[in-house]
Amino acid sequence: MATVVRNPPRADRATVDAFAGFGVATVHEAQGRTGLLAPRISPIYRGARIAGSAVTVSVPPCDNWMIHVAVEQCGDGDVLVVAPTSFSDAGYFGELLATALHARGVRGLVIDAGCRDVAELAELGFPVWSACVSAQGTVKATLGDVNVPLVCAGQAVQPGDIVVADDDGAVVVPLTRAAEVLAAADARERKEAAVRARYRAGELSLDVSGMRDDLAAAGLTYVDHPDGAPR
Amino acid sequence: MATVVRNPPRADRATVDAFAGFGVATVHEAQGRTGLLAPRISPIYRGARIAGSAVTVSVPPCDNWMIHVAVEQCGDGDVLVVAPTSFSDAGYFGELLATALHARGVRGLVIDAGCRDVAELAELGFPVWSACVSAQGTVKATLGDVNVPLVCAGQAVQPGDIVVADDDGAVVVPLTRAAEVLAAADARERKEAAVRARYRAGELSLDVSGMRDDLAAAGLTYVDHPDGAPR
Amino acid sequence: MATVVRNPPRADRATVDAFAGFGVATVHEAQGRTGLLAPRISPIYRGARIAGSAVTVSVPPCDNWMIHVAVEQCGDGDVLVVAPTSFSDAGYFGELLATALHARGVRGLVIDAGCRDVAELAELGFPVWSACVSAQGTVKATLGDVNVPLVCAGQAVQPGDIVVADDDGAVVVPLTRAAEVLAAADARERKEAAVRARYRAGELSLDVSGMRDDLAAAGLTYVDHPDGAPR
Amino acid sequence: MATVVRNPPRADRATVDAFAGFGVATVHEAQGRTGLLAPRISPIYRGARIAGSAVTVSVPPCDNWMIHVAVEQCGDGDVLVVAPTSFSDAGYFGELLATALHARGVRGLVIDAGCRDVAELAELGFPVWSACVSAQGTVKATLGDVNVPLVCAGQAVQPGDIVVADDDGAVVVPLTRAAEVLAAADARERKEAAVRARYRAGELSLDVSGMRDDLAAAGLTYVDHPDGAPR
Amino acid sequence: MATVVRNPPRADRATVDAFAGFGVATVHEAQGRTGLLAPRISPIYRGARIAGSAVTVSVPPCDNWMIHVAVEQCGDGDVLVVAPTSFSDAGYFGELLATALHARGVRGLVIDAGCRDVAELAELGFPVWSACVSAQGTVKATLGDVNVPLVCAGQAVQPGDIVVADDDGAVVVPLTRAAEVLAAADARERKEAAVRARYRAGELSLDVSGMRDDLAAAGLTYVDHPDGAPR
Amino acid sequence: MATVVRNPPRADRATVDAFAGFGVATVHEAQGRTGLLAPRISPIYRGARIAGSAVTVSVPPCDNWMIHVAVEQCGDGDVLVVAPTSFSDAGYFGELLATALHARGVRGLVIDAGCRDVAELAELGFPVWSACVSAQGTVKATLGDVNVPLVCAGQAVQPGDIVVADDDGAVVVPLTRAAEVLAAADARERKEAAVRARYRAGELSLDVSGMRDDLAAAGLTYVDHPDGAPR
Repeated sequence: MATVVRNPPRADRATVDAFAGFGVATVHEAQGRTGLLAPRISPIYRGARIAGSAVTVSVPPCDNWMIHVAVEQCGDGDVLVVAPTSFSDAGYFGELLATALHARGVRGLVIDAGCRDVAELAELGFPVWSACVSAQGTVKATLGDVNVPLVCAGQAVQPGDIVVADDDGAVVVPLTRAAEVLAAADARERKEAAVRARYRAGELSLDVSGMRDDLAAAGLTYVDHPDGAPR
Repeated sequence: MATVVRNPPRADRATVDAFAGFGVATVHEAQGRTGLLAPRISPIYRGARIAGSAVTVSVPPCDNWMIHVAVEQCGDGDVLVVAPTSFSDAGYFGELLATALHARGVRGLVIDAGCRDVAELAELGFPVWSACVSAQGTVKATLGDVNVPLVCAGQAVQPGDIVVADDDGAVVVPLTRAAEVLAAADARERKEAAVRARYRAGELSLDVSGMRDDLAAAGLTYVDHPDGAPR
Repeated sequence: MATVVRNPPRADRATVDAFAGFGVATVHEAQGRTGLLAPRISPIYRGARIAGSAVTVSVPPCDNWMIHVAVEQCGDGDVLVVAPTSFSDAGYFGELLATALHARGVRGLVIDAGCRDVAELAELGFPVWSACVSAQGTVKATLGDVNVPLVCAGQAVQPGDIVVADDDGAVVVPLTRAAEVLAAADARERKEAAVRARYRAGELSLDVSGMRDDLAAAGLTYVDHPDGAPR
Repeated sequence: MATVVRNPPRADRATVDAFAGFGVATVHEAQGRTGLLAPRISPIYRGARIAGSAVTVSVPPCDNWMIHVAVEQCGDGDVLVVAPTSFSDAGYFGELLATALHARGVRGLVIDAGCRDVAELAELGFPVWSACVSAQGTVKATLGDVNVPLVCAGQAVQPGDIVVADDDGAVVVPLTRAAEVLAAADARERKEAAVRARYRAGELSLDVSGMRDDLAAAGLTYVDHPDGAPR
Repeated sequence: MATVVRNPPRADRATVDAFAGFGVATVHEAQGRTGLLAPRISPIYRGARIAGSAVTVSVPPCDNWMIHVAVEQCGDGDVLVVAPTSFSDAGYFGELLATALHARGVRGLVIDAGCRDVAELAELGFPVWSACVSAQGTVKATLGDVNVPLVCAGQAVQPGDIVVADDDGAVVVPLTRAAEVLAAADARERKEAAVRARYRAGELSLDVSGMRDDLAAAGLTYVDHPDGAPR
Repeated sequence: MATVVRNPPRADRATVDAFAGFGVATVHEAQGRTGLLAPRISPIYRGARIAGSAVTVSVPPCDNWMIHVAVEQCGDGDVLVVAPTSFSDAGYFGELLATALHARGVRGLVIDAGCRDVAELAELGFPVWSACVSAQGTVKATLGDVNVPLVCAGQAVQPGDIVVADDDGAVVVPLTRAAEVLAAADARERKEAAVRARYRAGELSLDVSGMRDDLAAAGLTYVDHPDGAPR
């Protein structure tokens, strides 16, 4: 039953690289507030922003044998996505596996479990988003699957889906929606740039977004504090 | 019932700025170990130390409409304090709202919920203390209240209270106690400076603080390890 | 019943310093995947790597009196290991105690509770591994014990045991196993250096570690994705 | 600074007893979805439903001295509300204190910390709502306050406020709002009884509450599953 | 974009009822240790064991409007499966909705969020498996989807999949695998009955399952305790 | 390195049975507030109270092979104590293993991990104290140790130590201290019976334990509420 699926569909490099230009929050909004991995997934070091095609790995708890198997299925522009079949806080991944992935052009790892060697990974520049940091080693005893659909940190991920990750966490975009989401992210960012300029100039979102009438209609009232004074 | 209270009492700028010179631990001690927000409130980036007058915002869960409303009530030297009426880990606040607050001289945000755009907030230099980081967006559907008394991360906060925040977390000082606490914090820091110098010179707190008699009276005994040897 | 045990056995300085050259993950593996403290123990700032002889302190919850007592028992090359008898998230330790320990050559602190003054500790260069960060002060009312066997974050620690800590967490090595573990760590690191070089050159762990036959024997199968295409 | 406030205002017995006839969810709704303690507060045994006037106790962490002090301030129809000044999971309260409170007609305890002797408390019929169960004992070393305003599990509680607790948790009602909330709870329950009868008869909330137009206006669409079939 | 899918494929009643005869642990094992919802999903009262066809509901956080919509899509033998798009601990579901579902023959609810009215639900005999208990009400402001694929507590669920729940938690079985898993569960239970009888008679699993050789081959050694004595 | 230690020292049956007559809180107090397992260890059903000699099992995470091995080492009056070497929430233990242990007179199980088949275990009357409930199965792939010293839920346990467990959790008593702790527990219970009678009669602990002078000396003051009135 343990299977490695080779050569899943993937987005082309230009698409993946375009996603890397947007942040997780923008992509999450651009696809209608879907796809965000649970916030327990956080970067082991700050400042990385990546996107890539998901190579998915379903592993037994506390067993990283299949991560070794998955390395061979990874290439330039991929992101490894690892989900154990039940939770543990062990450290399934460290600097040696990162070296192998880095050599193949893999952009990073998202794992709903623990990671170790975080100082070395930061030095190498191989970013990891994990549920925890732990030096606890794992065994190589039981098989799992590579490039099968799985759930990672609360989100369904298909092999080849696009994963975007930055300091805010990680989000997954179905491969079939890539173009649409990219366009929406771009539109959102342009719109936000205009809004940002107005905010910076001192305008209020109440006015920029025209919220005042809706607020009043919903019943919002303003009163002065009995003990206060205008500034 | 949803109300925005304008112009609550506030500390003057000099008082607020004086608090910014002390750390959270010092202020917490200076007011008798009260006012500390729960330790789930932590900074999204390290190195900021702020103080300001609280503009409080009670928001429905997963709804940030009232934060937009609150911006208008904020000015130079304020700190926004946001508490949802029930817990969720969504990201109520990001870089656009921060830009608007930054333009008004607001010192930072304390929120008992999630925050997003943390890389952009660090770049902007707008510090946030939050319960988690999450890109999950929120809606604008239900009203709440601005500048009402509320509980944030386990502490009662009145509008106009002074909030101090640094890498250790955040503490609230009732406006009526500001002068007293400031004096106590100053006294504490002077005393600690003297103690620090003695510790640095190798003296022991057992002697500096005269603990030996109390320890003996309480029954503390000293023995040598059977297998050990003096260094 | 409250006792301070003076002069427990300790490893010599060279041994301790040698451990500081290895990371937590390596030492943990070198002693057969034992001794790792629970992953809730994490550094208050990144980048420190230390080793030292454990001076153990069993403290009542929310009471740091015995940490003051323990300072006198610490010297150059030691690591303070503090375990409350029941959990609380208060801040038992701050910059003043760190100044005293730093003056005595203590390498750092591991505490299964909270720590405060984290900005000041980073500036001082005194590393702490703690379960949380909290400015909440503690009292000096009840005795505990120094240099007795205790459990810290899930691991039994004897006074004089060697504690190694870095960005991955902390691990304890029984004093009697120090030489053996040091040798194993050294061997492991040499072996990993060779493996790393091969990975960097593009070789796979499947081949370097000869896993393919075992995987096949366990029943692993490879298929091509129906919709995919070779890259 | 440690103070016991005697004889705070209280609701009369009839009011308190009337609240005991409603559940927590009903009271919480009746006062506009406010006042609910955090869900970590749960009953140590199922089936109790109480209401009473709050006698508040602010205790230092892991110290139950002030609970002993508070017993004297409690009488028939009261509920003891205990909040430590910082979190710990120790067991501040057990069967002996419950016996004393039970003898005075106290209805139960709400504590944002641990409780012990849960089997004996169930046998005695003295209900407790706590954050955890733990046999860990506490000390009697440091003073706190009785009948002062405090925050318990995220809600501000004044002495004399009405606390209602059942299998769903606990809610606090400000004394000044007691009559109003009682009336609203009663109205809500009558209305729900009518709704319940219609649901039981097979009617849908979509029709009973007239939601269909709003749902359609919001854009809800209905489609048939391509592979399904009507039942 | 908000859609209600009517009439998804479902297992026939006999199949669903057959699943109700097996426990969650058996079904989880019978389908190769897959499909188990995260252990945060637990029953609000003990003793229920159900199976049913999943009617799935994706709801915005703290909004239960779509649960009302979903009731109409439910019938005899169904189980409602509710997953918010981001986590909150509010109480989305109570006794009124349960009354409506109960009237339609729905077997129970699985929700990755909070539930309220637990005493009333136990009295009604409508079992719920939830992530927490909370009286906190939710709003009816934003649409979601009914009978779409979703992730609930870490498992992907398709409408019409079979959900089994008991005191151990909840497990989902893909509709396409129903017959196969049912057969495997039956075989497993027969085999376990035989094993149970041998265990009850004092036989050891070491012998019943023939583990001794494998243990010896793996290197297990037996020694006598130096201070012990045979019983 | 994997070892089964046979025939460790054990307390005699009368001693073990005497401990079963006391609750966890009493034993914990009687040995000076030591030995209590972390409160995450709770009973899977209410109402059991046991004591027994610890047969300890150190297991790899998500692997229950060694529990099968340990059964053979257990006899009448024992309690099985299982601690994985790193945390996971899987279900290592269910009704079949319980049947085997029950047949040998084992009193119960304490495990710092998950347990399954909780309904069946309750019916069988084999009590378990666990960190969680989960149906997730485990593998039989890697060896561990039986009857070695280990740490379970924060407490060091030696084989043959006495474990007491009830609705409050679990506590461990070193074998060498058994007689002393038994005597202290007995004395404590007699004393508490006298105190309980006085409390039941309406006396206050302030008087029974003579706390009033100490409270006054510590500075406790009494004031009347300005708005209150004597009852």
